[in-house]
Parts: sequence; structure tokens; C-alpha cells
Amino acid sequence: MLEHGGRLLAAAARYGIAAEDWLDLSTGIAPYAYPVPPIPSAVWQRLPEDEDGLAAVACRYYGVRRVLPLPGSQAAIQALPRLRAPGVALVPEPSYAEYAAAWSAAGHRVRRCAADDLLQVSTTADAVVIGNPNNPTGRRFSRSTLLDLARQLDARGGWLIVDEAFADAEEESESLADLAGSEAAGNLVVLRSLGKFFGLAGARVGFAIAADSILDQLAEAIGPWALAHPSRHAARAALADGAWQAAQRARLQRDSARLQGLLAAADLGDAGGTALFRYLPRGDARELHEFFARQGILLRHFAQPAAVRVGLPATEADWQRLAATLELWKRR
Amino acid sequence: MLEHGGRLLAAAARYGIAAEDWLDLSTGIAPYAYPVPPIPSAVWQRLPEDEDGLAAVACRYYGVRRVLPLPGSQAAIQALPRLRAPGVALVPEPSYAEYAAAWSAAGHRVRRCAADDLLQVSTTADAVVIGNPNNPTGRRFSRSTLLDLARQLDARGGWLIVDEAFADAEEESESLADLAGSEAAGNLVVLRSLGKFFGLAGARVGFAIAADSILDQLAEAIGPWALAHPSRHAARAALADGAWQAAQRARLQRDSARLQGLLAAADLGDAGGTALFRYLPRGDARELHEFFARQGILLRHFAQPAAVRVGLPATEADWQRLAATLELWKRR
Repeated sequence: MLEHGGRLLAAAARYGIAAEDWLDLSTGIAPYAYPVPPIPSAVWQRLPEDEDGLAAVACRYYGVRRVLPLPGSQAAIQALPRLRAPGVALVPEPSYAEYAAAWSAAGHRVRRCAADDLLQVSTTADAVVIGNPNNPTGRRFSRSTLLDLARQLDARGGWLIVDEAFADAEEESESLADLAGSEAAGNLVVLRSLGKFFGLAGARVGFAIAADSILDQLAEAIGPWALAHPSRHAARAALADGAWQAAQRARLQRDSARLQGLLAAADLGDAGGTALFRYLPRGDARELHEFFARQGILLRHFAQPAAVRVGLPATEADWQRLAATLELWKRR
Repeated sequence: MLEHGGRLLAAAARYGIAAEDWLDLSTGIAPYAYPVPPIPSAVWQRLPEDEDGLAAVACRYYGVRRVLPLPGSQAAIQALPRLRAPGVALVPEPSYAEYAAAWSAAGHRVRRCAADDLLQVSTTADAVVIGNPNNPTGRRFSRSTLLDLARQLDARGGWLIVDEAFADAEEESESLADLAGSEAAGNLVVLRSLGKFFGLAGARVGFAIAADSILDQLAEAIGPWALAHPSRHAARAALADGAWQAAQRARLQRDSARLQGLLAAADLGDAGGTALFRYLPRGDARELHEFFARQGILLRHFAQPAAVRVGLPATEADWQRLAATLELWKRR
């Protein structure tokens, strides 16, 4: 298994600090989650059914004709490579580690390149997988750039897979959801998730948006009832609640600006990010991560390229604790 | 997708009877479920972690050294065939339809045989997949028979996969869980589920028990966080609650006896079943299914061999409704 953020119990054991004493900023998950209503006992009891209205409410939220509900977008990240004959998969570096791992595990040759070189290198690829915005860098591609890329791939029967897990909270949306599977981009697969913006990472709910032929194959590969019924129930409520979504977007943008200000004040140069995290590429990333961990603040460390990712604190006390530790770091 | 029981919304549309007016006896799921405690918001919010204690409590419940938690045992039914080079998979007939579908989809040749011929035919198989007790027939194999079968397969590097989804409520357990992956049966994979006995089909929680090498491969194939955090939370509570389990076992055995009595009184010959359902192989199975559906009672119909499966009613009113419709059927 690859390493990921959010491994708080593991960190608690390693640093000898009780789980409840940590400030976990290691994920890009919204620190205030959609308030899930109580789960009726019938939902625990009955198998989930495709006709429960989840797909319809998701179509309205994403502005699309069809979605395939997934047990987390991770399920599609793993299954999509198995739907294609072995070829060359291009994955910009750095990006979410599961992309390259999944294509490699399915027998494809994985090529890595810098995000800036993507359009040039992709002329030899059978599939391109990117995050937009990208995790962990926050790097964004415009709709027109990605449409060009999709067209270029389509000429060779290739796919463009765009993971929009961090797209919901962005001020200017570059989402391609409305084009995925359309005539303009029949080879485009867009992945969405309720883990980050809705703060429901535990629910494991994602969606794939693509041409019918791709979604049908994906549905077969993933199999029946893969998404738990309580998770479907929570997702339906969250996706239908426009008032909460507007408030969440405003909160996240306000807090993201605050985090950028705090990091800048501590001379931690900010190279980018999304509304949900900041990305700090630094030679002393390991030292920075250790320093904060010893104070019970869990950041996400990346070894190659060396960087740290910082998520949003949840409460005023958490903000103060982060500010105090940033001050300690600055004066060390 | 294959057809399964529990498709109440589809039946409601087909027969023009509102979903809430149906008595759904089409599944083998316990009609009274484990009462899941409220889900803390942190559980919805945080990614599930392997170290949350679920595996430990499951090991105690099943009496084993190691389990792999699954998003329903269906996840293993689909993933296990992909872990082996194409060969011959033997699946007794009739059995749960997903076994043959999954092995076939993964490129294996699927052979079917009658349950009585299993040991004889298995000499040419690379894998054997059975339910014990079997769904939908209720047919049981003894531990010693299955151990013999496992040994025979082991000599050729083959696997024996035993789905014990319906094993929890049986009066005399023939579970092989304690032997799966042991020196005596390193090629034995046992699957368990919380869907039937615990009545938590919506939670999608299952477990695989097998040798470390098989479980490690299965874990990689299924990927991280496949099991939703609320589902893990519910499963931990259910598996630790010995008092509820004892009461549930008693309730199910009592109600199973009552169902057998009712069916016998209506001259519906009872060829077998488990504590959770009865299996009626009948030439007029389609007619029987239609008759009950028009009364708003959903049974499970099997076309080949023609049969109907009947689950347990939940309430006294449901029992009376079933009894009245059985009376109508008898007098038709």
C-alpha cells in the first residue's frame, strides 16, 4: 500500500502522542463537514438500489446527463486502467500517487513528466491521468488546454482522465464535467468526490462522468452494491443542499486566504495550492514535518520532490495552535 | 449486471404497487437488524484507518488469526479470480450467480456441476467456489468433505473458496474459518459477511480469511479505504455484541421453524434452506412468484432450475399477511 495523509493512528503510535491530542492538517479534506442526518435503520438493513435518486441529484449538482456512483473515486482510479489493453500511461509529476500505481499494476508502462511538458509528451501516450486542480501542487489546467489534449488523445483512441476531487471549492471553475462523454470529448473521463469539499472522506463516495460505453464497462468492473447504503443516503442529502454548499464555498475561501497569510508571515514561501490546502516545496520539508509532528501537528510530507502540504484548521483554537507553532518554527 | 433479490424499487414500478406497500421476502437477509448506534460526525469526516480495531474484533468473532475487511464479500468474489492465471473454475449449480460471472469475466473457463458430483468433477479444476450453506438451495458440506476437497486442489496449486455468508445462524456450524490459511488448508479462502445474520446488507461489510500471501494480494487488488468508515463503525459494534448475537440466533431459528411450518401447511414442499430462507424448487415457480407479487409479496424467483426462495417476515402483521396469501395460493 502507498502512503497517504490522514494516517493519524499511525502517527500517534510513532510520536507517542495520543490520537485526540493531534491537530491533523495532513489531508486536503474540509475541516467542517456536511452534517449528515441520522441514518434510518432501513438504510443499514437494505441493499442499496440504483434507483434511489442518488444519480439524479448528482447529475443536477455536476450539471451532467449521467454519472456512475463509486465507492470513492479511488475505485475508478484502480478500475479504469484494467479496461484498456496495456499501453503507455502518462502521469504528471508530482501528482496523487495512486494514479501511477494503478496504471502500473494493470500492466501499463507509466511515463512521468513535468506538468509544463504534458501536451508535448502526451503525443506518445495512450492515456493521460491528471488532477485538476492537481494534488498536491494545486496546479490548474484550463478547460481549453485539456480539451485540446483530449482531442489529441482521441485521434489515437486514447483516454484523458481528469480527477476533479479538489474542484468544488475553486473560485473559477475549470471543471470539464459537462463535456465528459459529449461529442466534443467522448474519450474524457471526469472523476468527482465528496471527500474533500463536503468533508465526507469517511463516506467513500465518488462519481465517474464519461461516455456510456466507458461507464458501462466501469460499472461491470466495480460490481453491484459497491457503494454502502448509508453513504448513498448521506451523499444524496449533501448534493441536494445548495444553501450549505454556498456557505461551505465561502467558508473555505475565507479560511484558505487566512492560511496563506499565516504561512507567508512565517516565511514559508507558498508555491500554490487549492482552497483546501497549501503546497510548500522545500529542501527542508522533512525537517519541517518532524518539527510540527513533535508539536502534535500532522502535516503531509512528500519525499520527492521534497514538499509539505498543509490543510485547513477547523476551530479558532486550532488556528491559534498552528500560528503558535509557525512562530516557533520561524524562531528555531 | 445479474439479477438479484432485494430489487424492491424495480418491482414496485413493474407491478404498480408503492414500495412501502410491499412485503419483501426476496432476500435471505435477517428481517431484524443489529441496531447500529448513531454515527459520530468524525466518522463521516475522516478516512477509515486499518488500525481502528475492526480487524481485531472480527478475528475474535470468527476465531481466526487474521481477516481482511472487505466492502461486502462481493468485493472478494470479484477480485479473487483476477489473482490467478486463467484456468478452470468449478461452481456447483445452482449457486449464487456472481461466482460464475466473476470467474468467467476474469478469463477462466467455468464448469458447472451438481453439488453431489463436486468431489468427483473437481479433479480437473484449478479453483472451486461454493457457498456453505449454499444460496439458494441451503445445501451443506461437512468440514471433513471440504478439507478433503481443499487437499485435493492443493496438490495442483488450486484454491477452494467457501462463501459462508449464511453460516452465522446455523445450529451446527460447519464453518471452516479457523482452518483457512492454516497449514492444513493454505489454499482455502473463507468469505464471511455482515449482510445476512446481522441484517446489515446496506452496510456492505464482509471479510476474507486466508493465507497471508492471498490476503496481501487481495488487499492490493481492492485498494485503500474501500470500506466506508460508518460501515466499519457499525461492524465493530455488531461483531463485539455477543448478547445481541445470541438473541439473534435464537430468534432466527424460531422464525425459520415457523416459516417451514407455514409453507408445509400450504403444500409448498420444502426442499431445504437455511435459518434465513427456504428454497422451493418447483415447476410452477414463475406462476407462484407472480401470484405473490400481485399480492404485494416479493419472493425471489429462479428460472433455471425453476425455484422460489422465501425469506423471513419481520413482524406479526407480516406473518399474517404471508399466511393469508399462502392460503389464497392453496385455494386458487
